[in-house]
Amino acid sequence: MEGLLPTMSVTANTPPSARPRYVVGVDFGTLSGRAVVVRVADGRELGSAVVDYRHGVIDRRLPDGGGPLPPDWALQHPEDWRDVLRRGVPAALAASEVDAADVIGIATDFTACTVLPALADGTPLCEVDGLAAEPHAWPKLWKHHAAQAQADRINALAAERGEKWAPRYGGKQSSEWEFAKALQVLEEAPHVYERCERWIEAADWIVWELTGAESRNACTAGYKGIHQDGAYPSSEFLAGLDPRFADFPATRLAHPDGLAALGSRVGGLSERAAAWTGLPAGIAVAAGNVDAHVTAPAARAVDPGKLLAIMGTSTCHVLNGTALADVPGICGVVEGGITAGFFGYEAGQSAVGDIFAWWSGLSRRDHEELTAACADQPVGGHGLIALDWMGGNRSILVDHDLSGMIVGLTLATRPEEVYRALLEATAFGTRVIVEAFEAGGVPVEEFVVAGGLKRNSFLMQVYADVLRRPVSVAVSDQAPALGAAIHAAVAAGAYPDVPAAAEAMGACETAAYVPDPERADAYDVLYAEYRALHDAFGAGGGVLHRLRKIRNAAIASEKGPASEH
Amino acid sequence: MEGLLPTMSVTANTPPSARPRYVVGVDFGTLSGRAVVVRVADGRELGSAVVDYRHGVIDRRLPDGGGPLPPDWALQHPEDWRDVLRRGVPAALAASEVDAADVIGIATDFTACTVLPALADGTPLCEVDGLAAEPHAWPKLWKHHAAQAQADRINALAAERGEKWAPRYGGKQSSEWEFAKALQVLEEAPHVYERCERWIEAADWIVWELTGAESRNACTAGYKGIHQDGAYPSSEFLAGLDPRFADFPATRLAHPDGLAALGSRVGGLSERAAAWTGLPAGIAVAAGNVDAHVTAPAARAVDPGKLLAIMGTSTCHVLNGTALADVPGICGVVEGGITAGFFGYEAGQSAVGDIFAWWSGLSRRDHEELTAACADQPVGGHGLIALDWMGGNRSILVDHDLSGMIVGLTLATRPEEVYRALLEATAFGTRVIVEAFEAGGVPVEEFVVAGGLKRNSFLMQVYADVLRRPVSVAVSDQAPALGAAIHAAVAAGAYPDVPAAAEAMGACETAAYVPDPERADAYDVLYAEYRALHDAFGAGGGVLHRLRKIRNAAIASEKGPASEH
Repeated sequence: MEGLLPTMSVTANTPPSARPRYVVGVDFGTLSGRAVVVRVADGRELGSAVVDYRHGVIDRRLPDGGGPLPPDWALQHPEDWRDVLRRGVPAALAASEVDAADVIGIATDFTACTVLPALADGTPLCEVDGLAAEPHAWPKLWKHHAAQAQADRINALAAERGEKWAPRYGGKQSSEWEFAKALQVLEEAPHVYERCERWIEAADWIVWELTGAESRNACTAGYKGIHQDGAYPSSEFLAGLDPRFADFPATRLAHPDGLAALGSRVGGLSERAAAWTGLPAGIAVAAGNVDAHVTAPAARAVDPGKLLAIMGTSTCHVLNGTALADVPGICGVVEGGITAGFFGYEAGQSAVGDIFAWWSGLSRRDHEELTAACADQPVGGHGLIALDWMGGNRSILVDHDLSGMIVGLTLATRPEEVYRALLEATAFGTRVIVEAFEAGGVPVEEFVVAGGLKRNSFLMQVYADVLRRPVSVAVSDQAPALGAAIHAAVAAGAYPDVPAAAEAMGACETAAYVPDPERADAYDVLYAEYRALHDAFGAGGGVLHRLRKIRNAAIASEKGPASEH
Repeated sequence: MEGLLPTMSVTANTPPSARPRYVVGVDFGTLSGRAVVVRVADGRELGSAVVDYRHGVIDRRLPDGGGPLPPDWALQHPEDWRDVLRRGVPAALAASEVDAADVIGIATDFTACTVLPALADGTPLCEVDGLAAEPHAWPKLWKHHAAQAQADRINALAAERGEKWAPRYGGKQSSEWEFAKALQVLEEAPHVYERCERWIEAADWIVWELTGAESRNACTAGYKGIHQDGAYPSSEFLAGLDPRFADFPATRLAHPDGLAALGSRVGGLSERAAAWTGLPAGIAVAAGNVDAHVTAPAARAVDPGKLLAIMGTSTCHVLNGTALADVPGICGVVEGGITAGFFGYEAGQSAVGDIFAWWSGLSRRDHEELTAACADQPVGGHGLIALDWMGGNRSILVDHDLSGMIVGLTLATRPEEVYRALLEATAFGTRVIVEAFEAGGVPVEEFVVAGGLKRNSFLMQVYADVLRRPVSVAVSDQAPALGAAIHAAVAAGAYPDVPAAAEAMGACETAAYVPDPERADAYDVLYAEYRALHDAFGAGGGVLHRLRKIRNAAIASEKGPASEH
C-alpha cells in the first residue's frame, strides 16, 4: 500500500517552516484499537499500530472473577482503551518516522453505543473502590443486548405518548442505546445508578482522557442519546418509565457547553495524555466520533446521495441528506450527525461478515474456496433464498429476536451454493434499506464501501448487481482511523471544514464495480422472493419469535438443574 | 448376529426325512442385490451374499457410450440383475453351508416402479439388436424422474374425468410409475414404444427369468400399474392422453392368468435358472414383490394398525387396513397389496437418510459425531425447524418440485443442531403421514421400523416422542430379503399363508422405544410450527416452485452456451 512506504524522503531535507504537518487518528474497535499517523496535505498514511484489548469482550465473568454474567451481556475494560493511547500512538509514530513535533492534532472514533457510568471527574465507576465487583459499574459494549425489556418499554411509551423524537429513530430505539442501557442499570442495580454522576459514551470518555475535560459530541448524543431538536426526552416521559429516571438527562448527560460539532476542537492535549502518547501537549483534540460516521470523509462519501457502508462483521450505513425525513426502520437521523450542515442518516445490518464466517466454520471450508467454487454459477443457479437474520435484523425491522433461514435446499445443494446465497442475502438486506431511504425521500445514488469486506470483489459485484448502482470503494484499508485523522486536521484548523478535508485527504475508487444489466435483471426476480419472505417472516416475528422463545425456555430449563451440580 | 453363525450343527447328523428345509430370498436394491438363505422352521438366516451392480445407476451415459442422458434420468442394466442370481445365490448358499437339495423355494423382491420394455419372450429391448443405443429401450429405475410432464397430464385428465381409481392413489399418480414412464417412451421414442411387446415391472421380469414364464403380481400392478377393482384404466381415458396409448394395458400389461397373489407359487425354477443359482430345478418360485411390502412379514407387521416404515435413504411406509379408504396424499391402496385379505396402504418420504448424509457431507462431520454432539440437548434447544423436502415430498404433498428449508438459524447455530433438526424434520414428516392415515379412517397404533436407520437409537427415540407411539424394531438386518424368503416358504406350501409364516419366521422387538411424555409435549409445540410451515410452503408450491424454475432456467441457460464449445 502506498501509504505504508518509508517516509524518509518526505520528512528529510525540508525547511522547518515548510515541514509537512501530521495528524493522528485513533480508531477504537470491538477487540482492538488502531492508531494511524496521516499527512495533513494529502491524507497519506505513514504509519499505524494496532493494540489488542487485553480483556477483549467481557461476556462471561468480570476481570476479577465473580459469578457468571447473564446471557447477552457484553462489557469492556477502560484500561484496555487507555492502552491504545499509551502503546498504540507511540508505536504508530515510530512506524511513521514522523517527528512528533510536527503533529498538530489528534482525533478518535469509537464503537457506539458503548457507554459507561462515571464520577463527575470522569473516573469509570468500575475503577471506584468497592464497585469493581458490580457488573453494572462496567462499560457496556455496543453489543450488550440485555436491555431489551427496557427498550421495549421505552418504545411502547414513546408510541403511546406520540413522542416527537420517536420517528427520528425509525420508530424504534434499540436495546443497544444509551437510555435502555441506563434504565437497565437503574432497575437492576439502583445502588450503582446512584453512584453514577455521568453516563457517558466511550467516544466522549476517551476524549475526556485526552483533554482532561468532559465534552459531548453531536453524533452519539443524537444517534444514541435521543438528543433531537436541541433537547433530550422530557422528564414527564422518563418519569413514565420510572420516577427515578425523570432527571436522568439533566443530571447525567447534559453538558453546560452543549454538544460539540464533529471536527470541532474540544480542547488541547493534556500533559498526562501528552506523556502517554508522546505527542506535544496542547495540540488540538477533536470532538468524539463514531467509527462508522467518521469514515465518510475518508471514503469521500460526504455528499448527499452517497450511501457509505462500512462492511465487516456487521454493516453500518451512513448517508447525508439535505432535508429531514422520517424513514421507518432506520437507526436514526441526526442533524450534523455525519458532517455539519446535513442531516445524517444511519442504518445497519446486524450480521454480515459474521454470517459468512459462521457458514465457513460450519462447513469447514475457507472463504476463498467457497467463493471460488460458485462465483461462475449463473444468478439463481443454486435455487436458494436466504434471510440474513442470523444476528437479528437492525434495519429495517429493528428486531433482534428474528433469526435466519435458508430456503430451496435440495440433496444436490453444495456448501458453496449456500455461501453464495448468504452473500446475496446480505445484498438483498442492503437493498431493503436503500429502498426504505428512497421511499422515505432520501435519495441514494451511489454505494460506497469501506471495511474489510471491500476486498471481496465477487461480493462487491453482487452488491452492484443487486442494488443496480455503481459500487465505489474506499481506498484506505483503515478508513475509520483515517477519518478520525481528517477530523483532527479540521480541529487543528488545517481545513475549514470536514468536506474540504475529505476532498484533500480522503480517497475513493469511484464506480469500481458497475451493475451488469442481465445479472441485475436476474437478481430482481430473486429479490422479489427475498422481499416476500422478508415481509412474511419479519412482520410481527411469528414463527421466528416463537422458535426463539422455545429455544430460550429449553436452554433455561436445562441450565436450571445443571447449575445444581 | 445370530443368523450368521456357522450352521454345521444344524445340518449335520439329521435323518433325511426330518432334515430342516430352507428357502432363498433375493432382494434387488438400487445399487446391489442380496441373497439370503433362511430356515423355514424359524426364519433363522444362515448365510447371505451381496452383489454390487456393475453398472449401478445409469444416469449419465448408456453403457456403450453415446450422448449424455437428459437430467432426471435413471436407468439400470438387466444383466446386473441376472448377476445377482448367478453369483449372489450360490455365494449365499455356500456361506450358509446348507445343502441346495434342502432348499424348497425362492422368492424375490425389487425396487418399484422399476420397469422395462421387453419382447413377448421377455428379452429386454435394450438387448435387442439395434436398440442398445436407444435410451428409452433400457429399464427405467424407480427414481427416473423425467416423466413429470406425463404424470401431470395423467393427473389432470383423471381429475377432469373423475376417474374412480384416482383417489386410490391419494389423488396423484407419481411420475415414477408405470403409465407416466410408458407414456414418456411413446411420446419421446415412438419407434421404441412400437417394438415394446411387454411393459413389465422388474419385479415380474426377474421372476420370468427364474421360471421362464411371465407372471404379474398383484402388488406392483396395483400400486404402480393403476390396476384397481379388477381393471386397468379405460381405453377412453388413455386415448385422451394419446390415441396411440389407448391399447397400452391390453397389449402390453394384461396377462391371461390375471394377477398373482403375493406368496403364491407362479412356477417352478427353470433348468436355466437352476444352473445359474445352484438350486434344484422345479422348486417353488413366488410371485414378484416390492422391497417395502415384502418386508412387513419379516417385521411381523402384517396386522392392521402396524405401520411399517422401511427407513434408509428414503422411507417407505406400508400399513394393512381392514377397509378401503381414500386417503389424500398417500401413494396408494391396493387390495392384497401387502398380504391377501387386507387393504394394503403405502406412503413414503422421498429422502430421509439421504438428507442426513447430505448434511454430514456438507458439514464434513460424520453421523456419530453429529448425533452425539446434541443428543442431550433439550427439545427445542436449537431453536430450529426444518422442512425435510430436500428430495421433494412423496406423501402427503406428492410434489417433487418442492425443496427443503431450515428456519431459525443464528450465528450460534452449530452443525450438530441443524443435523438434529433434520432428524426431527423427518419424524415430523412421518407424523403428517400418520395423521393423514388416521384422518382418512385407517388407524395407526404402532410404528415398526426396518432398514438401516433402525440402528440409530437416538433417531428411533425421536420418532417415538414425535409420534407419541411405541416404536418397534425389526430384528433382521436384511428384512426385505427375509421377507422374500417368507414368501418363498408360503409359495412352497410350508405355511398356509403369509401371516402364519410371518408369525414363525419374522421377528420384531416390540416397543423397543416408548414415548417420553415430557419430550412428546415439547415436540408437539415444534410439530405445530412444522405443520404450519408445511402447509404454508407446500400448498401450491409457491416460492419453492418458483425457485426451482429459476434454478432450472439458470442451469439451462448456462449449459446452452457451454455445450457449443
